[in-house]
Amino acid sequence: MKPKIDYTLYLVTDRELMAAASIDECVEQAIMGGCTVVQLREKTASSREFYETALRVREVTAHLGVPLFINDRADIALAVGADGVHIGQGDLPYEAARRIVGPNKIVGVSASNLAEALEAIEQGADYLGVGAMFATGTKTDAALTSMDELRKIREKANLPIVAIGGINKETVPLFRGTGIDGIAVVSAIVSQKDATGAARELKSLFCGWRDS
Amino acid sequence: MKPKIDYTLYLVTDRELMAAASIDECVEQAIMGGCTVVQLREKTASSREFYETALRVREVTAHLGVPLFINDRADIALAVGADGVHIGQGDLPYEAARRIVGPNKIVGVSASNLAEALEAIEQGADYLGVGAMFATGTKTDAALTSMDELRKIREKANLPIVAIGGINKETVPLFRGTGIDGIAVVSAIVSQKDATGAARELKSLFCGWRDS
Repeated sequence: MKPKIDYTLYLVTDRELMAAASIDECVEQAIMGGCTVVQLREKTASSREFYETALRVREVTAHLGVPLFINDRADIALAVGADGVHIGQGDLPYEAARRIVGPNKIVGVSASNLAEALEAIEQGADYLGVGAMFATGTKTDAALTSMDELRKIREKANLPIVAIGGINKETVPLFRGTGIDGIAVVSAIVSQKDATGAARELKSLFCGWRDS
Repeated sequence: MKPKIDYTLYLVTDRELMAAASIDECVEQAIMGGCTVVQLREKTASSREFYETALRVREVTAHLGVPLFINDRADIALAVGADGVHIGQGDLPYEAARRIVGPNKIVGVSASNLAEALEAIEQGADYLGVGAMFATGTKTDAALTSMDELRKIREKANLPIVAIGGINKETVPLFRGTGIDGIAVVSAIVSQKDATGAARELKSLFCGWRDS
Protein backbone atom coordinates (compact mmCIF):
# COMPACT_ATOMS: atom_id res chain seq x y z
CA MET A 1 0.00 0.00 0.00
CA LYS A 2 1.17 3.51 -0.71
CA PRO A 3 2.13 5.58 2.32
CA LYS A 4 -0.14 8.49 3.26
CA ILE A 5 1.83 11.70 2.79
CA ASP A 6 1.52 15.06 4.52
CA TYR A 7 2.68 17.52 1.85
CA THR A 8 2.52 20.66 3.99
CA LEU A 9 6.22 21.53 4.08
CA TYR A 10 8.15 19.71 1.38
CA LEU A 11 11.91 20.05 1.54
CA VAL A 12 13.97 19.74 -1.64
CA THR A 13 17.70 19.40 -1.00
CA ASP A 14 20.46 21.24 -2.82
CA ARG A 15 24.06 20.33 -2.11
CA GLU A 16 25.43 23.58 -3.53
CA LEU A 17 23.17 25.90 -1.53
CA MET A 18 23.15 24.24 1.85
CA ALA A 19 24.58 25.90 4.93
CA ALA A 20 24.90 22.66 6.92
CA ALA A 21 28.03 20.50 6.73
CA SER A 22 26.20 17.56 5.15
CA ILE A 23 22.91 16.82 3.47
CA ASP A 24 21.78 14.43 6.17
CA GLU A 25 22.44 17.12 8.80
CA CYS A 26 20.53 19.66 6.69
CA VAL A 27 17.59 17.27 6.37
CA GLU A 28 17.58 16.54 10.07
CA GLN A 29 17.52 20.26 10.93
CA ALA A 30 14.67 20.88 8.49
CA ILE A 31 12.61 18.01 9.89
CA MET A 32 13.17 19.30 13.42
CA GLY A 33 11.59 22.55 12.20
CA GLY A 34 8.53 20.75 10.85
CA CYS A 35 9.31 19.57 7.31
CA THR A 36 6.80 16.83 6.52
CA VAL A 37 8.41 15.25 3.45
CA VAL A 38 11.87 15.30 1.87
CA GLN A 39 12.99 15.06 -1.73
CA LEU A 40 16.67 14.29 -2.25
CA ARG A 41 17.86 16.02 -5.40
CA GLU A 42 21.39 15.57 -6.73
CA LYS A 43 22.24 17.08 -10.06
CA THR A 44 26.00 16.64 -10.27
CA ALA A 45 26.88 13.73 -7.97
CA SER A 46 28.01 10.40 -9.41
CA SER A 47 25.56 7.53 -9.04
CA ARG A 48 27.67 6.12 -6.21
CA GLU A 49 27.69 9.44 -4.31
CA PHE A 50 23.97 9.88 -4.91
CA TYR A 51 23.30 6.35 -3.62
CA GLU A 52 25.49 6.76 -0.55
CA THR A 53 23.94 10.13 0.30
CA ALA A 54 20.49 8.64 -0.16
CA LEU A 55 21.34 5.82 2.26
CA ARG A 56 22.39 8.34 4.93
CA VAL A 57 19.35 10.57 4.36
CA ARG A 58 17.14 7.49 4.44
CA GLU A 59 18.40 6.70 7.93
CA VAL A 60 17.54 10.20 9.14
CA THR A 61 14.07 10.32 7.57
CA ALA A 62 13.19 6.80 8.72
CA HIS A 63 14.33 7.59 12.23
CA LEU A 64 12.26 10.78 12.32
CA GLY A 65 9.25 9.24 10.57
CA VAL A 66 9.22 11.45 7.49
CA PRO A 67 8.82 10.09 3.95
CA LEU A 68 11.67 10.37 1.46
CA PHE A 69 11.40 10.80 -2.29
CA ILE A 70 14.33 10.58 -4.70
CA ASN A 71 14.57 13.05 -7.56
CA ASP A 72 14.70 11.48 -11.03
CA ARG A 73 16.51 8.21 -10.19
CA ALA A 74 14.01 5.37 -9.87
CA ASP A 75 16.91 2.92 -9.44
CA ILE A 76 18.27 4.79 -6.42
CA ALA A 77 14.77 5.13 -4.94
CA LEU A 78 14.43 1.35 -5.12
CA ALA A 79 17.96 0.67 -3.93
CA VAL A 80 17.60 2.67 -0.71
CA GLY A 81 13.97 1.81 -0.05
CA ALA A 82 12.70 5.37 -0.46
CA ASP A 83 8.97 6.07 -0.37
CA GLY A 84 8.88 7.34 -3.91
CA VAL A 85 10.44 9.12 -6.81
CA HIS A 86 9.86 12.61 -8.15
CA ILE A 87 10.16 13.04 -11.90
CA GLY A 88 10.50 16.25 -13.87
CA GLN A 89 9.64 16.73 -17.51
CA GLY A 90 13.24 15.87 -18.46
CA ASP A 91 13.34 12.68 -16.41
CA LEU A 92 12.02 9.20 -17.15
CA PRO A 93 8.42 9.22 -18.42
CA TYR A 94 5.79 8.42 -15.79
CA GLU A 95 5.02 4.90 -17.08
CA ALA A 96 8.68 3.89 -17.13
CA ALA A 97 9.26 5.19 -13.60
CA ARG A 98 6.09 3.50 -12.35
CA ARG A 99 7.04 0.15 -13.91
CA ILE A 100 10.39 0.29 -12.14
CA VAL A 101 9.25 1.31 -8.65
CA GLY A 102 6.04 -0.73 -8.69
CA PRO A 103 2.52 0.12 -7.53
CA ASN A 104 3.30 0.80 -3.87
CA LYS A 105 5.64 3.77 -4.22
CA ILE A 106 4.69 7.39 -4.66
CA VAL A 107 5.45 8.86 -8.08
CA GLY A 108 5.25 12.66 -8.17
CA VAL A 109 5.48 14.69 -11.35
CA SER A 110 6.57 18.27 -12.06
CA ALA A 111 4.17 20.37 -14.11
CA SER A 112 4.69 23.96 -15.20
CA ASN A 113 1.33 24.37 -16.90
CA LEU A 114 -2.15 22.90 -17.18
CA ALA A 115 -1.33 20.64 -20.15
CA GLU A 116 1.56 18.98 -18.31
CA ALA A 117 -0.58 18.67 -15.19
CA LEU A 118 -3.46 17.02 -17.07
CA GLU A 119 -1.09 14.56 -18.72
CA ALA A 120 0.43 13.62 -15.37
CA ILE A 121 -3.00 13.17 -13.79
CA GLU A 122 -4.17 11.03 -16.69
CA GLN A 123 -1.08 8.85 -16.33
CA GLY A 124 -1.69 8.34 -12.64
CA ALA A 125 0.71 10.66 -10.80
CA ASP A 126 0.30 10.64 -7.01
CA TYR A 127 0.91 14.34 -6.62
CA LEU A 128 2.01 17.36 -8.66
CA GLY A 129 4.90 19.71 -8.07
CA VAL A 130 3.73 22.89 -9.79
CA GLY A 131 6.13 25.67 -10.79
CA ALA A 132 8.53 27.27 -10.94
CA MET A 133 6.24 29.91 -9.38
CA PHE A 134 8.92 32.58 -8.91
CA ALA A 135 12.42 33.12 -10.29
CA THR A 136 15.01 31.30 -8.28
CA GLY A 137 18.73 30.75 -8.13
CA THR A 138 18.31 26.98 -8.27
CA LYS A 139 16.31 26.85 -11.50
CA THR A 140 17.30 29.87 -13.50
CA ASP A 141 16.20 28.53 -16.87
CA ALA A 142 12.70 27.55 -15.80
CA ALA A 143 9.70 29.31 -17.32
CA LEU A 144 7.51 30.68 -14.57
CA THR A 145 4.03 29.41 -13.76
CA SER A 146 1.46 32.11 -13.05
CA MET A 147 -0.88 32.09 -10.05
CA ASP A 148 -3.70 31.96 -12.58
CA GLU A 149 -2.28 28.74 -14.10
CA LEU A 150 -1.85 27.27 -10.62
CA ARG A 151 -5.53 27.95 -9.88
CA LYS A 152 -6.57 26.30 -13.16
CA ILE A 153 -4.53 23.23 -12.26
CA ARG A 154 -6.05 23.19 -8.77
CA GLU A 155 -9.54 23.21 -10.30
CA LYS A 156 -8.81 20.19 -12.49
CA ALA A 157 -6.59 18.17 -10.15
CA ASN A 158 -8.12 15.92 -7.57
CA LEU A 159 -4.72 15.04 -6.10
CA PRO A 160 -2.22 16.81 -3.86
CA ILE A 161 -0.48 19.88 -5.28
CA VAL A 162 2.75 21.29 -4.00
CA ALA A 163 3.91 24.67 -5.32
CA ILE A 164 7.63 25.10 -5.94
CA GLY A 165 10.07 27.79 -7.05
CA GLY A 166 11.14 30.87 -5.14
CA ILE A 167 8.99 30.08 -2.12
CA ASN A 168 10.11 31.96 0.99
CA LYS A 169 8.51 33.96 3.76
CA GLU A 170 7.80 36.86 1.39
CA THR A 171 6.05 34.71 -1.23
CA VAL A 172 4.21 32.20 0.97
CA PRO A 173 1.31 34.62 1.67
CA LEU A 174 0.67 34.94 -2.07
CA PHE A 175 -0.64 31.35 -2.13
CA ARG A 176 -3.52 32.17 0.16
CA GLY A 177 -6.74 30.92 -1.36
CA THR A 178 -5.07 28.79 -4.04
CA GLY A 179 -5.97 25.56 -2.28
CA ILE A 180 -2.54 23.99 -2.58
CA ASP A 181 -1.62 21.17 -0.22
CA GLY A 182 1.91 22.20 0.47
CA ILE A 183 4.89 24.36 -0.34
CA ALA A 184 8.15 22.94 -1.66
CA VAL A 185 11.14 24.86 -0.43
CA VAL A 186 14.80 24.73 -1.37
CA SER A 187 17.03 27.68 -0.53
CA ALA A 188 14.72 29.36 2.01
CA ILE A 189 15.50 26.38 4.22
CA VAL A 190 18.72 24.71 3.11
CA SER A 191 20.80 27.87 2.72
CA GLN A 192 19.77 29.22 6.14
CA LYS A 193 22.16 28.86 9.05
CA ASP A 194 19.15 28.13 11.23
CA ALA A 195 17.35 25.70 8.95
CA THR A 196 15.16 24.51 11.82
CA GLY A 197 13.95 28.04 12.57
CA ALA A 198 13.44 28.78 8.87
CA ALA A 199 11.33 25.65 8.42
CA ARG A 200 9.30 26.42 11.53
CA GLU A 201 8.58 29.99 10.34
CA LEU A 202 7.55 28.90 6.84
CA LYS A 203 5.28 26.19 8.16
CA SER A 204 3.65 28.51 10.60
CA LEU A 205 3.07 31.14 7.89
CA PHE A 206 1.58 28.57 5.52
CA CYS A 207 -0.53 26.82 8.13
CA GLY A 208 -1.66 30.12 9.63
CA TRP A 209 -3.82 31.05 6.68
CA ARG A 210 -4.37 27.55 5.32
CA ASP A 211 -6.13 26.42 8.46
CA SER A 212 -8.13 29.59 8.90
CA MET B 1 17.95 -17.16 -17.70
CA LYS B 2 20.83 -14.88 -18.52
CA PRO B 3 21.57 -14.44 -22.21
CA LYS B 4 24.79 -15.97 -23.54
CA ILE B 5 27.04 -13.13 -24.67
CA ASP B 6 29.75 -13.04 -27.32
CA TYR B 7 32.15 -10.39 -26.00
CA THR B 8 34.52 -10.37 -29.00
CA LEU B 9 33.89 -6.83 -30.24
CA TYR B 10 32.19 -4.72 -27.60
CA LEU B 11 31.05 -1.29 -28.75
CA VAL B 12 30.76 1.56 -26.22
CA THR B 13 28.91 4.58 -27.57
CA ASP B 14 29.96 8.19 -27.18
CA ARG B 15 27.64 10.91 -28.36
CA GLU B 16 30.36 13.54 -28.51
CA LEU B 17 32.82 11.52 -30.58
CA MET B 18 30.51 9.89 -33.07
CA ALA B 19 30.73 10.60 -36.78
CA ALA B 20 27.22 9.30 -37.56
CA ALA B 21 24.16 11.56 -37.37
CA SER B 22 22.58 9.61 -34.52
CA ILE B 23 23.57 7.01 -31.97
CA ASP B 24 21.22 4.40 -33.33
CA GLU B 25 22.74 4.86 -36.80
CA CYS B 26 26.23 4.59 -35.31
CA VAL B 27 25.26 1.38 -33.51
CA GLU B 28 23.72 -0.07 -36.64
CA GLN B 29 26.87 0.63 -38.68
CA ALA B 30 29.08 -0.92 -36.00
CA ILE B 31 26.96 -4.06 -35.81
CA MET B 32 27.04 -4.39 -39.59
CA GLY B 33 30.83 -4.47 -39.22
CA GLY B 34 30.70 -7.27 -36.67
CA CYS B 35 30.21 -5.71 -33.20
CA THR B 36 28.87 -8.46 -30.98
CA VAL B 37 27.60 -6.44 -28.03
CA VAL B 38 26.72 -2.79 -27.41
CA GLN B 39 26.97 -0.63 -24.32
CA LEU B 40 25.03 2.61 -24.44
CA ARG B 41 26.88 5.22 -22.43
CA GLU B 42 25.48 8.72 -21.90
CA LYS B 43 27.31 11.04 -19.58
CA THR B 44 25.55 14.36 -20.11
CA ALA B 45 22.07 13.55 -21.43
CA SER B 46 19.01 14.10 -19.26
CA SER B 47 17.27 10.95 -18.05
CA ARG B 48 14.56 11.47 -20.64
CA GLU B 49 17.05 11.80 -23.50
CA PHE B 50 18.98 8.78 -22.23
CA TYR B 51 15.76 6.76 -22.04
CA GLU B 52 14.57 7.79 -25.49
CA THR B 53 17.96 7.09 -27.04
CA ALA B 54 18.03 3.72 -25.30
CA LEU B 55 14.61 2.85 -26.74
CA ARG B 56 15.83 3.62 -30.26
CA VAL B 57 19.11 1.73 -29.82
CA ARG B 58 17.14 -1.16 -28.31
CA GLU B 59 15.13 -1.44 -31.51
CA VAL B 60 18.30 -1.62 -33.61
CA THR B 61 20.08 -4.16 -31.41
CA ALA B 62 16.98 -6.34 -31.04
CA HIS B 63 16.42 -6.28 -34.78
CA LEU B 64 20.03 -7.26 -35.47
CA GLY B 65 20.19 -9.80 -32.63
CA VAL B 66 22.93 -8.16 -30.59
CA PRO B 67 22.71 -7.72 -26.80
CA LEU B 68 22.50 -4.23 -25.30
CA PHE B 69 23.88 -3.08 -21.97
CA ILE B 70 23.17 0.30 -20.39
CA ASN B 71 25.98 2.18 -18.69
CA ASP B 72 25.34 3.02 -15.03
CA ARG B 73 21.54 3.40 -15.08
CA ALA B 74 19.86 0.25 -13.82
CA ASP B 75 16.48 2.00 -14.08
CA ILE B 76 16.93 2.74 -17.78
CA ALA B 77 18.18 -0.80 -18.41
CA LEU B 78 14.96 -2.12 -16.88
CA ALA B 79 12.75 0.45 -18.57
CA VAL B 80 13.90 -0.38 -22.09
CA GLY B 81 14.33 -4.11 -21.54
CA ALA B 82 18.09 -4.10 -22.09
CA ASP B 83 20.09 -7.28 -21.54
CA GLY B 84 22.12 -5.80 -18.72
CA VAL B 85 23.83 -2.90 -17.07
CA HIS B 86 27.49 -1.98 -16.89
CA ILE B 87 28.66 -0.32 -13.70
CA GLY B 88 31.86 1.57 -13.08
CA GLN B 89 33.51 2.18 -9.74
CA GLY B 90 31.60 5.48 -9.39
CA ASP B 91 28.22 3.97 -10.20
CA LEU B 92 25.77 2.03 -8.03
CA PRO B 93 27.44 -0.75 -6.04
CA TYR B 94 27.07 -4.23 -7.54
CA GLU B 95 24.54 -5.49 -4.98
CA ALA B 96 22.26 -2.48 -5.47
CA ALA B 97 22.37 -2.79 -9.25
CA ARG B 98 21.75 -6.54 -9.07
CA ARG B 99 18.77 -6.11 -6.73
CA ILE B 100 17.22 -3.66 -9.18
CA VAL B 101 17.72 -5.57 -12.42
CA GLY B 102 17.10 -9.02 -10.94
CA PRO B 103 18.91 -12.32 -11.47
CA ASN B 104 18.35 -12.67 -15.22
CA LYS B 105 20.21 -9.61 -16.47
CA ILE B 106 23.92 -9.28 -17.09
CA VAL B 107 25.77 -7.01 -14.64
CA GLY B 108 29.26 -6.09 -15.83
CA VAL B 109 31.75 -4.22 -13.68
CA SER B 110 34.72 -1.97 -14.51
CA ALA B 111 38.01 -2.85 -12.81
CA SER B 112 41.28 -1.01 -13.19
CA ASN B 113 43.33 -3.32 -10.98
CA LEU B 114 43.37 -6.77 -9.42
CA ALA B 115 41.76 -5.67 -6.14
CA GLU B 116 38.75 -4.18 -7.91
CA ALA B 117 38.52 -7.24 -10.14
CA LEU B 118 38.58 -9.66 -7.20
CA GLU B 119 35.89 -7.66 -5.41
CA ALA B 120 33.67 -7.69 -8.48
CA ILE B 121 34.18 -11.44 -8.97
CA GLU B 122 33.40 -12.11 -5.32
CA GLN B 123 30.20 -10.08 -5.62
CA GLY B 124 29.08 -12.04 -8.66
CA ALA B 125 29.81 -9.84 -11.68
CA ASP B 126 29.03 -11.49 -15.02
CA TYR B 127 32.03 -10.03 -16.80
CA LEU B 128 34.79 -7.50 -16.23
CA GLY B 129 35.68 -4.43 -18.26
CA VAL B 130 39.38 -3.99 -17.51
CA GLY B 131 41.19 -0.71 -18.12
CA ALA B 132 41.78 1.94 -19.10
CA MET B 133 44.60 0.11 -20.89
CA PHE B 134 45.89 3.12 -22.85
CA ALA B 135 45.42 6.87 -22.60
CA THR B 136 42.31 8.00 -24.39
CA GLY B 137 40.39 11.13 -25.19
CA THR B 138 37.20 9.74 -23.67
CA LYS B 139 38.63 8.98 -20.22
CA THR B 140 41.47 11.40 -19.68
CA ASP B 141 41.48 11.16 -15.89
CA ALA B 142 41.65 7.40 -15.70
CA ALA B 143 44.72 5.71 -14.24
CA LEU B 144 46.10 3.22 -16.71
CA THR B 145 46.06 -0.53 -16.22
CA SER B 146 49.27 -2.31 -17.20
CA MET B 147 49.40 -5.42 -19.36
CA ASP B 148 50.96 -7.12 -16.36
CA GLU B 149 47.92 -6.27 -14.21
CA LEU B 150 45.60 -7.48 -16.96
CA ARG B 151 47.42 -10.83 -17.01
CA LYS B 152 47.12 -11.12 -13.21
CA ILE B 153 43.39 -10.47 -13.45
CA ARG B 154 43.08 -13.03 -16.25
CA GLU B 155 44.79 -15.63 -14.07
CA LYS B 156 42.32 -15.11 -11.20
CA ALA B 157 39.12 -14.48 -13.14
CA ASN B 158 37.05 -17.36 -14.36
CA LEU B 159 34.65 -15.08 -16.22
CA PRO B 160 34.73 -13.06 -19.44
CA ILE B 161 37.18 -10.16 -19.59
CA VAL B 162 36.92 -7.28 -22.00
CA ALA B 163 39.82 -4.85 -22.24
CA ILE B 164 38.97 -1.16 -22.69
CA GLY B 165 40.72 2.15 -23.18
CA GLY B 166 42.61 3.34 -26.22
CA ILE B 167 41.99 0.18 -28.19
CA ASN B 168 42.51 0.66 -31.92
CA LYS B 169 44.22 -1.13 -34.76
CA GLU B 170 47.66 -0.14 -33.44
CA THR B 171 47.03 -1.43 -29.90
CA VAL B 172 44.94 -4.56 -30.60
CA PRO B 173 48.03 -6.70 -31.40
CA LEU B 174 49.46 -5.93 -27.95
CA PHE B 175 46.75 -8.09 -26.38
CA ARG B 176 48.03 -11.23 -28.06
CA GLY B 177 48.46 -13.95 -25.50
CA THR B 178 46.57 -12.16 -22.72
CA GLY B 179 43.59 -14.49 -22.99
CA ILE B 180 40.97 -11.74 -22.98
CA ASP B 181 37.53 -12.51 -24.38
CA GLY B 182 36.97 -9.28 -26.19
CA ILE B 183 38.00 -5.72 -26.89
CA ALA B 184 35.82 -2.77 -25.96
CA VAL B 185 36.11 0.05 -28.43
CA VAL B 186 34.84 3.62 -28.37
CA SER B 187 36.44 6.18 -30.69
CA ALA B 188 38.20 3.72 -33.01
CA ILE B 189 34.72 2.83 -34.19
CA VAL B 190 32.28 5.63 -33.36
CA SER B 191 34.42 8.51 -34.57
CA GLN B 192 35.19 6.82 -37.90
CA LYS B 193 33.26 7.90 -40.99
CA ASP B 194 33.22 4.24 -42.02
CA ALA B 195 32.26 2.70 -38.68
CA THR B 196 31.34 -0.56 -40.40
CA GLY B 197 34.77 -0.89 -42.00
CA ALA B 198 36.51 0.10 -38.77
CA ALA B 199 34.61 -2.53 -36.80
CA ARG B 200 35.32 -5.18 -39.42
CA GLU B 201 39.05 -4.42 -39.40
CA LEU B 202 39.32 -4.48 -35.58
CA LYS B 203 37.42 -7.73 -35.33
CA SER B 204 39.53 -9.35 -37.97
CA LEU B 205 42.75 -8.21 -36.27
CA PHE B 206 41.57 -9.47 -32.88
CA CYS B 207 40.17 -12.77 -34.16
CA GLY B 208 43.18 -13.36 -36.37
CA TRP B 209 45.55 -14.02 -33.52
CA ARG B 210 42.94 -15.04 -30.94
CA ASP B 211 41.82 -18.01 -32.97
CA SER B 212 45.33 -19.09 -33.96
